[in-house]
This record gives sequence, C-alpha cells and structure tokens, in this order.
Amino acid sequence: MANLPTILDVALAAGVSRQTVSNVLNSPDIVRPATRERVQSAISELGYRPHASARRLRTRKSSTIGIRLDPVTNGISGSVLDRFLHELTAQADRLGLRILLFTATDPEDEIQQFRRLRDGADVDSFVLTSTFHDDPRIRWLIENGESFVTFGRPWGADDMSDPHHLWVDVDGYSGLRDATRHLLGQGLRRIGYIGWPSPSGTGDDRRRGWHDTMIAEGGWSATDLDPFQVAKVDSVSNGAEALAALQLATGGVDGVVCASDSLALGARMAGGPGVAVIGFDDTPVAAAMGIASVEQQLDLVAAGVLELLTGAHGGKVQRDGTPVSDPRHRLVAPRLVVRDSAAPHSVQR
Amino acid sequence: MANLPTILDVALAAGVSRQTVSNVLNSPDIVRPATRERVQSAISELGYRPHASARRLRTRKSSTIGIRLDPVTNGISGSVLDRFLHELTAQADRLGLRILLFTATDPEDEIQQFRRLRDGADVDSFVLTSTFHDDPRIRWLIENGESFVTFGRPWGADDMSDPHHLWVDVDGYSGLRDATRHLLGQGLRRIGYIGWPSPSGTGDDRRRGWHDTMIAEGGWSATDLDPFQVAKVDSVSNGAEALAALQLATGGVDGVVCASDSLALGARMAGGPGVAVIGFDDTPVAAAMGIASVEQQLDLVAAGVLELLTGAHGGKVQRDGTPVSDPRHRLVAPRLVVRDSAAPHSVQR
Repeated sequence: MANLPTILDVALAAGVSRQTVSNVLNSPDIVRPATRERVQSAISELGYRPHASARRLRTRKSSTIGIRLDPVTNGISGSVLDRFLHELTAQADRLGLRILLFTATDPEDEIQQFRRLRDGADVDSFVLTSTFHDDPRIRWLIENGESFVTFGRPWGADDMSDPHHLWVDVDGYSGLRDATRHLLGQGLRRIGYIGWPSPSGTGDDRRRGWHDTMIAEGGWSATDLDPFQVAKVDSVSNGAEALAALQLATGGVDGVVCASDSLALGARMAGGPGVAVIGFDDTPVAAAMGIASVEQQLDLVAAGVLELLTGAHGGKVQRDGTPVSDPRHRLVAPRLVVRDSAAPHSVQR
Repeated sequence: MANLPTILDVALAAGVSRQTVSNVLNSPDIVRPATRERVQSAISELGYRPHASARRLRTRKSSTIGIRLDPVTNGISGSVLDRFLHELTAQADRLGLRILLFTATDPEDEIQQFRRLRDGADVDSFVLTSTFHDDPRIRWLIENGESFVTFGRPWGADDMSDPHHLWVDVDGYSGLRDATRHLLGQGLRRIGYIGWPSPSGTGDDRRRGWHDTMIAEGGWSATDLDPFQVAKVDSVSNGAEALAALQLATGGVDGVVCASDSLALGARMAGGPGVAVIGFDDTPVAAAMGIASVEQQLDLVAAGVLELLTGAHGGKVQRDGTPVSDPRHRLVAPRLVVRDSAAPHSVQR
C-alpha cells in the first residue's frame, strides 16, 4: 500500500500552502470560500485523513491532551476558559486528538497530576491556562521534556525569545487600543479606564493599550490622564462604583473602556446611556445587554495551540497576511464587537 | 501485604453506612460535621484510598468517563452544562476517575464516537447530557451493554421504572412550585409564567410546576389561568416581549416565574421593579442583576451521576432523609435563591 497522503500532498494538489490546508481543517471560516472548496476537493480526491496529522504529536502515544479544569467561577467572565475548552475540544477532535480533564488544587498539585498522567501514558501533551510570572508548572514541564503549549504568555522578560515555552495569547493591548480608538473616532475625548489592581500581567497590558492610545491619538499627557483610571477587583458592583469615582475625580467622562464585561456592565448601569462603555470578553451578558466588547477570538487561540502542539507551525503568515516573527508563539488579535453602548446616547449630547 | 481496606471497612470502623462514607467522599457538605469527622478519621486510620472505589466501574478498564462537549452556546443559560462538567470533573478526580471529552455533530455521530471509544478501550463508561424522548443514543448503549448514566431523564412513559437507563435529573416541577409558592407567600396573586414552546420535556415540566401550584395554592381555575402563560424561544428580548404580552392579555401581572434566566432578565428589564421576577438556573448574570432564580444544585447532580456510574448506589435515603424509591434514578430538588427581584418594589404597591 502506498504511503498515506500528507498535508503537503493536499497543499500541492490544491496549489496552496500547507498553512492554508491547516486553516481549512482548523478554522475554515478564515479561508476564502473558493480556496476552501479547492482544498476540500483535494482532500476528498487524495483520501487525505486529517487524523494522520495527529500522529505528529511528539511523543506519539495516546493522542490525548491533558488540561486542567478549574473550579466553577461565578463571575460573568468566568466562562472564557470554558469557551476555549469547547473550541479546543472541537478542533482537536477533527485532528483525531482527545482531551482528558483533570483538576488540581494548586500549581504543586498540578505538577503531581502531570507526573501521574505522564507515568500512566494517559496523555502525551498538556495545554495550560492561567499562566503567571515564574510559573513552577512551566519549569517542571520544560525540565522533564514534556510537550506542552500554554494559553497565556510567560509574563517574563523573554516572552518572545524563550525557545522552550510555546504559547498562544490574546493581544489585550491591541484590544484596548482598538476600543479606545473607536471611542475617539466617535468624537469622544474624556475616555476613562476601569481595570484591575496592578500587578496583573493581563490587566496591566490592557491598561497600557488605553493609556498609550489616549496619549498618541487622543492628545493627552500622562499627567492629565492620571485621574481617568480606576482599579477595582472584578465585579459588577465595583464597575458601578468605579464609574462614580471617575465622574467625581475628573468632573465627568464621555466614555469608559473596561478590562472586563463585569466592570463594563456595572459602569453601564451606573452611567446610563450618556456614557459610552466598552467591555472585554464579549460574554453572553454583554450581548444580551447591548454592551460593546472586545472578543478574544478563542477559535483562533485554539487553532494556534493545536498547531504548536502538533508541530504544524511551519507556516509563515498570520491571518492578516503578515509574517510570523517567531513560529513558537502566537499573539492573537482580538476583535471589537460594536453595540449600542459604544456610542453616547443623544439624550446627553 | 494485606488486602486494601474497602469502603465497607471504613463504614464499619466509623459506625456508619457505606452510603454515608460515599457521601463524605462525594458530597461532604451534605454530611453532618461530627459524622464527617468520624468517617475521615476512619479513612486516615485505615489508610483507605478512595481511588480504590474507582475500580468498581463495571468494565474495570481505563477508569475514564467519556462525555460529549457541545459547541459553545451563546445564551446566558448555556453555561449550565459547563458548570456540571466542572462539578463532575472535580468529583470524579476524587474517585480516581478521569473525564475524556469528545464532540459529535448529531446523535448518530455520537454513537460512532461511542463505538470508537469503546473499541479503543479509551473509556469504560459514558455520561450523557441533553437527553430527549426516544433517544437513539440510549438505545445503542443499552443494546451494547455499555455502562452509562444520563443527566436528564428519558422523558418517556416509563422514566421511573426503566431498569436499564440510570439517570439523574433536576426536578424542575418542584423548582417552579417553590418559586410560585414564594411569590404567593409575598401576597402576590396575579403571577404569570414565561416559558418555552411545547413540546419540551424540561419546559413542560417547569410549566406544570407553576400551573399546579397556582391552582392548588393560589385558588385559580385552569381557565382563568390561561392568559397568564406565554411561550417564547429562549432569549432576553423574548423575555421582555413576553412580559409585555402578559400585561396586555391579563390587564397586569404582579409577578412572573420563568423557565430561564434569559427570559427572566428580559422580563425584569421590561417590567421594572413593580413586577416580581424569578428565573431558572441561577446564572452569574442573575446574581449580578439581583434576579432571584432556581438553582439546579449541580454538585448533587454530579454526585448522583458518579454514584450510579460506580455502582455505589446501594443507599436508601436522600439528602432530606426520605427513602429512595428506586436507587437507579435520582431526582435532585433544586433550590430557590431569593434576591431583590423576588419581591415587588414598594413604588407600585
């Protein structure tokens, strides 16, 4: 029997790059319909089975990926990792890979679980979420030569150059930049920021997106911008309090961009239609309440994680056509979802 | 080396039933603190390892449970099955059992997945969700002698007597009865119901809970009650429309009980503080918006599923002390979470 067709055979037959074939398999919606059809025809004609690419998993054992499932979080944004898990499971399935769930009480316990799962050959790679600076889990996985990818950057000095730590993350900086830019484009000038207490890798990154854009594109000085930012622990009531505090400290804001939909919902309820509000995570609540929000594009995050995990990361262009600077990392651009709350209502104009 | 201690050894040492030991392991919060401590001491002294109970799984292969993960649902209540998965994973972990996720496009595809996972000995039992009347998946699992438990009753004529189909479900009828009773107890009389189009096993069950309580405890006739019910597809905007329709059809309602938090949120936004509102599912949104809601108690659902799956269902009493009529099924009573929306605001009284 001849060798099974590879992804390269499909790419050659369809006259596209391997990356495009991978996109058709993992994120078909980002491929132009005509190209998609051509690739799908080639897949059918050659009898290519996407499952074969699963065999590329480095350790070639169980075709199973281990991932820790955190306890239920009750916050509005708590569902983001669940949505990532859905995307990851669906896309892994198409590659013939399965997801094994486990729980852990803390990082040390999670390392014990890694050891058990590895020793039992239950999984041959890991996906980690909720990374933090100097994460002992990462150290253990690297020292033990395990195959892993994190959703979340290392938050260290050498994020982009670390050769051992493959990661995918969402570019929160550009998300807040886009949100701020959108409100500036609506003619708003007094735009505040409601975020989380520092230090927070994710939170500080989002804050900088607002801060730098207000200076570079809004014409503000850093000093004048100072009273326009409030840090609160994530909750709806804190979002309402933060907006009230901003109004007091600044003499009034036209709009706010927020680190989360919880904070945005609170700000929306406290500010009424006269204050534009943009949240983060595009949760079902934001959609239901007409609150504009920055969407993480978790389908692209999951696709990136699987590409790095299966070693299928030889591609050289991103979704927008720009070259990938380092194929060991992916920084996914989030997408602004504009809704009613993204414009100040006429009643107060 | 002597035999490993069993759950029975622990029960004898602690002077309790096997069921109580199982409860301490699976749902410690339902056991009285003094009893719990006695059982935990016995576990420590004997060196009993709960993992051993995982070996009871009928087919004794991989100690892994397969469960289908559905695509992301964007509705507010879509997170209920995710929350169940979190509970199931955490509790399974304590029993030394793991959860393997897969996806399926439809029931036939899911059956193919069952076959693949069984043939590969990847899992030795299945947990199913979203059951429906005359479900082909259930038929296949029974015909093939697979070990499985469903979260969701069969919705057939013989739900309670079916000896092959082990299931756990939430008693939506009693949830809506409790919600309706609560509003009647507040002195409200004109209480409407906003639910889903019939037929819907879950939805019809919830509607009957309201309906029967209004007649038995509210003094209504079925005929007079007719205009007090509206059926809409689940969404926030439909909840708002439903409330407006109810107001028109009835000349005004004091309160509404709803089949979901999405409908309740819409009703709350349309009705304002003058109309009491109670939702279903106790989602993070309901908590954030101060909307009273019926909580499914997914921790108890997960505990019941694992108990049936591991064969540890010899117990004879439920949480409230009443005997279990048939240990092959569990109907978990939900819990009313009272919040601001559960009482009409004084402005309209």
